[in-house]
Amino acid sequence: MKFQPPKGTRDFLPEETITRQKVIEVIKTVFENYGFQPLETPAIESWEVLSAKGAGGNEILKETYNFEDLGKRRIGLRYDLTVPLARVVASNPSLQLPFKRYQIEKVWRYGDVTKGRFREFLQADVDIIGSDGVVADAEIIACVISTFTSLGFEKFLVRINNRKILTALGKYAKISSKINAVFTAIDKLDKVGIKGVERELTELKLSKDSIKIILDFIQIQGEPLKTLNKAEKLIGNITEGKQGISELKELINYLEKMKVEPKFKVDFSLARGLDYYTGPIFEVLAEEGIGSIAGGGRYDKMIGLFSGKDIPATGISLGIERIIEVMKERKMIKQTKNKTKVFVAAVNDEVRDETLGLVQKLRQNGISADFDLKSRNLTRQLKYADSIGIPFVIIVGKNELNKNAVKVKDMIKSKESEVKLSNLINFLTES
Amino acid sequence: MKFQPPKGTRDFLPEETITRQKVIEVIKTVFENYGFQPLETPAIESWEVLSAKGAGGNEILKETYNFEDLGKRRIGLRYDLTVPLARVVASNPSLQLPFKRYQIEKVWRYGDVTKGRFREFLQADVDIIGSDGVVADAEIIACVISTFTSLGFEKFLVRINNRKILTALGKYAKISSKINAVFTAIDKLDKVGIKGVERELTELKLSKDSIKIILDFIQIQGEPLKTLNKAEKLIGNITEGKQGISELKELINYLEKMKVEPKFKVDFSLARGLDYYTGPIFEVLAEEGIGSIAGGGRYDKMIGLFSGKDIPATGISLGIERIIEVMKERKMIKQTKNKTKVFVAAVNDEVRDETLGLVQKLRQNGISADFDLKSRNLTRQLKYADSIGIPFVIIVGKNELNKNAVKVKDMIKSKESEVKLSNLINFLTES
Repeated sequence: MKFQPPKGTRDFLPEETITRQKVIEVIKTVFENYGFQPLETPAIESWEVLSAKGAGGNEILKETYNFEDLGKRRIGLRYDLTVPLARVVASNPSLQLPFKRYQIEKVWRYGDVTKGRFREFLQADVDIIGSDGVVADAEIIACVISTFTSLGFEKFLVRINNRKILTALGKYAKISSKINAVFTAIDKLDKVGIKGVERELTELKLSKDSIKIILDFIQIQGEPLKTLNKAEKLIGNITEGKQGISELKELINYLEKMKVEPKFKVDFSLARGLDYYTGPIFEVLAEEGIGSIAGGGRYDKMIGLFSGKDIPATGISLGIERIIEVMKERKMIKQTKNKTKVFVAAVNDEVRDETLGLVQKLRQNGISADFDLKSRNLTRQLKYADSIGIPFVIIVGKNELNKNAVKVKDMIKSKESEVKLSNLINFLTES
Repeated sequence: MKFQPPKGTRDFLPEETITRQKVIEVIKTVFENYGFQPLETPAIESWEVLSAKGAGGNEILKETYNFEDLGKRRIGLRYDLTVPLARVVASNPSLQLPFKRYQIEKVWRYGDVTKGRFREFLQADVDIIGSDGVVADAEIIACVISTFTSLGFEKFLVRINNRKILTALGKYAKISSKINAVFTAIDKLDKVGIKGVERELTELKLSKDSIKIILDFIQIQGEPLKTLNKAEKLIGNITEGKQGISELKELINYLEKMKVEPKFKVDFSLARGLDYYTGPIFEVLAEEGIGSIAGGGRYDKMIGLFSGKDIPATGISLGIERIIEVMKERKMIKQTKNKTKVFVAAVNDEVRDETLGLVQKLRQNGISADFDLKSRNLTRQLKYADSIGIPFVIIVGKNELNKNAVKVKDMIKSKESEVKLSNLINFLTES
């Protein structure tokens, strides 16, 4: 009999789940602080929705769990939270726009299982539907920077680019017919370096001139507005270039007005794989170690796929597993083995009934409490409480009860005190 | 293009998701108060695990979503949270026992879609692994009664029976060979009445004597200990009867010592469908309207299916969708349309930049805030804030700004006040 969960999926025992819950709680709090409202959608979607042209695209569809349900309908497990959102918006025409929603749920992709890559993983998305203004993109970036700051991240960086600028670059370098392959190649700059990108572009049989133009362009760096000005000189006379640069200038301007921490840079080598982006695109780098921990952008054409009527949209998706991995590497997480505060132990069977009443009294006063469910002796009760990580043990014994008191043992400081029953709740609440 | 989620599944828009989050939060708080720790397992499980003999059983397997994954392994969507728990315990032999865990996650069953029955639904489970003492069953019942009380339920009742008593009844009525069909029939007492059960038993071709014994037995009622004493006179000389009754007496005794609210009764017509129960079984009735809103029991043989070594276990599963449905019917839920506290509106474009700074200041002070993302005029900004349900609007205008102030409009009371910027955070925090 197989014990393990399916490959690429994991069980999360309490200690790990407590960590996940803490991280999710911080993220949820920031999302709500920014005015995003929660949405829930089913794990399964019809194949028609998942495979809609312009949705996930072929690369993702190849990795999508799909099957006929018992009623012979083809369905699949969702591979992201963006396509379901587009469907929800299309199917709810009475929704007030702009619609700012967050969703923190699992998605599934049958891909290679490597470090930080799983087949079932948790995404945390924020999106703004119904605003074509760059201010909405700025709001997304401000929210994501707040999120990482609130999680305690010091090192991280939001890379910003614009699909329109990339389109203009394609025209400028005269490689528009191979533009998707070129996007894929330049997106690897971080991983393979400039020589690596050059090699990939050469393999695409681009002319030397084209390659030089592209390589020079994606290496433009520096303070955001200066970077944009440099690019403007090169592609500012191409319609998409002009638009894309002007949008990013406006975006940077908004971020400054919002006094957003300067954890962002304009980076023309950012391309992002998905076909559906139409404007600004963004990606959060953890810097050092694992690469991208969040990514998104503007997708003004996707909702129209479902409803026939385009509605502008922008958003970002955070990868919870990768975020937690980085937080662990950087020792940003204080692990909690057990959330229970008190274990009530009985010295012997004579006082077991008293422990039951006491446990209930603690619980009624909001103090989480556990007790012996296996009729063990005191030593083994203490050992159990210690091994599962409960910080306080109340020891109930006849002698102390006769004085209307119990012993309270602080398991971390290994310190014992006698506490009057009348003062017990106070004592524990303050401990 | 299909807009709707697959049949039997639903999208939850913000208002509904906020309600779900509130209910889950109450449940989670009580579970943790009782010392249960969180566990997470994958939505997909290998078919071998899901279909293990003695796990869900044939009726459930017929309704289980299953398919070959892209690597040609047969997997399925989990139909409950008990089987995955059994697998986790079997695969983690170093887990400290007793292991008290809760899990609040979705499960899937391809069944008929009727009122309160969906194909994707949320379960909230508590289980205690590794204690064969009846005190563990009492702890489960105490926890579930606390949960419903904390949710605000006044009308609800925990029905308690014991599989051993039913086995003894089978022997006493001499119908052991048809025992499962008899269980199914008596389980319907609530729905079809005593005449209905009689009809079903007659269809099973039981003798008149057997039928009379069964009908008399399942109608024994009254105060728990008296009910058990009556039953003891009938089946107390059968081994399983003696054991089962003694366990329930002990259980009732524990509940009394724990001073648990008397929201429970012994009910010999409770059978519960699943094969895997071995001892006490329980079910929570909402009373009036929808029937069962939680159910569980002791299953001492399931973990052994996976590990080859039996480990005693008991637990209960709450059906969140049904609970919320009852709470809505009973008007126990205060709906919240939007969790955002403040919308910051600009009187005109001249002050839009100021709104951005102000919004960020509110957010940094823990006040959730939103602003105009569509360059609308003031009237339309106010209308939007009202329609999505934000209770306060700050109106930023030149005149007030010159006095270092803004207007704050209480959208519910429809009351406007001028508030100094230096006092704004206080004013809103106290509002």
